[in-house]
Amino acid sequence: MSSTIRFLHHPTSQPCRAVNQFMLEVGIPFDQEIVDLLSGANETQEFKDKFNPTGQVPIICDGDFVVWESSAIAFYLNEKFKAPPNWLGADVRQRATIQQYCHWHSTFLRRGAGAFFFTHFAECIWGKQDYSKEIAKGRYILDESLVYLDTWLIKNRYLCGSEISFADLLAYHELVSHVAGKIVSDPEWKKFPRIKHWYDEISARPHSDPLNATIMQVGAMRLAGAAIPMTRKTSLAKGTEVTAGLYN
Amino acid sequence: MSSTIRFLHHPTSQPCRAVNQFMLEVGIPFDQEIVDLLSGANETQEFKDKFNPTGQVPIICDGDFVVWESSAIAFYLNEKFKAPPNWLGADVRQRATIQQYCHWHSTFLRRGAGAFFFTHFAECIWGKQDYSKEIAKGRYILDESLVYLDTWLIKNRYLCGSEISFADLLAYHELVSHVAGKIVSDPEWKKFPRIKHWYDEISARPHSDPLNATIMQVGAMRLAGAAIPMTRKTSLAKGTEVTAGLYN
Repeated sequence: MSSTIRFLHHPTSQPCRAVNQFMLEVGIPFDQEIVDLLSGANETQEFKDKFNPTGQVPIICDGDFVVWESSAIAFYLNEKFKAPPNWLGADVRQRATIQQYCHWHSTFLRRGAGAFFFTHFAECIWGKQDYSKEIAKGRYILDESLVYLDTWLIKNRYLCGSEISFADLLAYHELVSHVAGKIVSDPEWKKFPRIKHWYDEISARPHSDPLNATIMQVGAMRLAGAAIPMTRKTSLAKGTEVTAGLYN
Repeated sequence: MSSTIRFLHHPTSQPCRAVNQFMLEVGIPFDQEIVDLLSGANETQEFKDKFNPTGQVPIICDGDFVVWESSAIAFYLNEKFKAPPNWLGADVRQRATIQQYCHWHSTFLRRGAGAFFFTHFAECIWGKQDYSKEIAKGRYILDESLVYLDTWLIKNRYLCGSEISFADLLAYHELVSHVAGKIVSDPEWKKFPRIKHWYDEISARPHSDPLNATIMQVGAMRLAGAAIPMTRKTSLAKGTEVTAGLYN
């Protein structure tokens, strides 16, 4: 059995791109397997039993050991591959601050993804319906979250200190999707020039553009009115749906 | 300046009780300060600037260093006080599994708290209104989450292995509130005897009953129809509200 990490992911997923960039930046060897989310390959019982009961990606397999949840994956890989200390923290305080961000992220910025998802993808899955409440809810949380990011960037060049950490990758890839779908564009950037500066700095890193290519293309297609055939239903922007179970 | 940890919390908060029990079980010295959530003391700008921009509890202060988010607090204290390895994991795999649980928790079981909150507390804050959609949403996520807990308890005595970990405390204290408010009672226990057995095991630990006394009393008051005067609005069961901003 290969000792290389198996990385199960999809390039349109924000947490997948964050983990992908982390592995590329650190130089962790991995074999990637794209999970066909569009056809719902992750929703089969076999997939859930084998990899992740939630059906969500990213997932890594290290031999027979499986980890899901993007922040837990980064935590595991950081320890196993002894990543440079900027990524998950150089000392006990910085490590706690990065953990704190990762948990904040799940209940704030990550749920803002509903603005992107319900604007661009919901119609492709469930047809034309009134998604305005979900979009409004996503935008509300996104707007709220941007204020937090801005506050943290007043204090430090990156979200948890003077160097880039996994927290920045999590946040960055949420914004990449919003930029791809023009959920975040000039009005937001004018309001938050510090966030724009930080976003541009991360965008200039060598791995960013290749990782973003697919979602940028998908965003452009949707903005041009093209439908994307997809059946995926699992856990997209979980918590952003107005009624649980309504879009399952 | 004392080197003892300051613990800012409220006994009705599930994540606060989880951190509180962790500190008591490990024997971490701390001074507790109850934050008057009922009057919204945590919603003042001064509180947010000084402690936590989200206004949420629990919070710890170690000298001038502040950590919030319950899982990040446990992570920090575990490292600083070298807690016994069962709590946050004895090796890299178990540590990752516990991290994975803590992140799953935020988007699943924690949001099931909406069932309790909107059944018992919403009326005390905003008066009699139709909260049925929020309650249904909370119950949906709670029911979904119980299936996950049950699956994990088939494999292991505790959620992440053969010994109790911080993951169990997070999950346990969510269920304590549901039990206090009879959101979880005989029908659920009959359906999930394994979860009931695990719940009873943790309830039998010496620190459990004293930590649960307040919420049990509050639950009994609400079940008897007594109103609890409260203005607290911040981040209660965030993500369970049907429309973001509607109950802010």
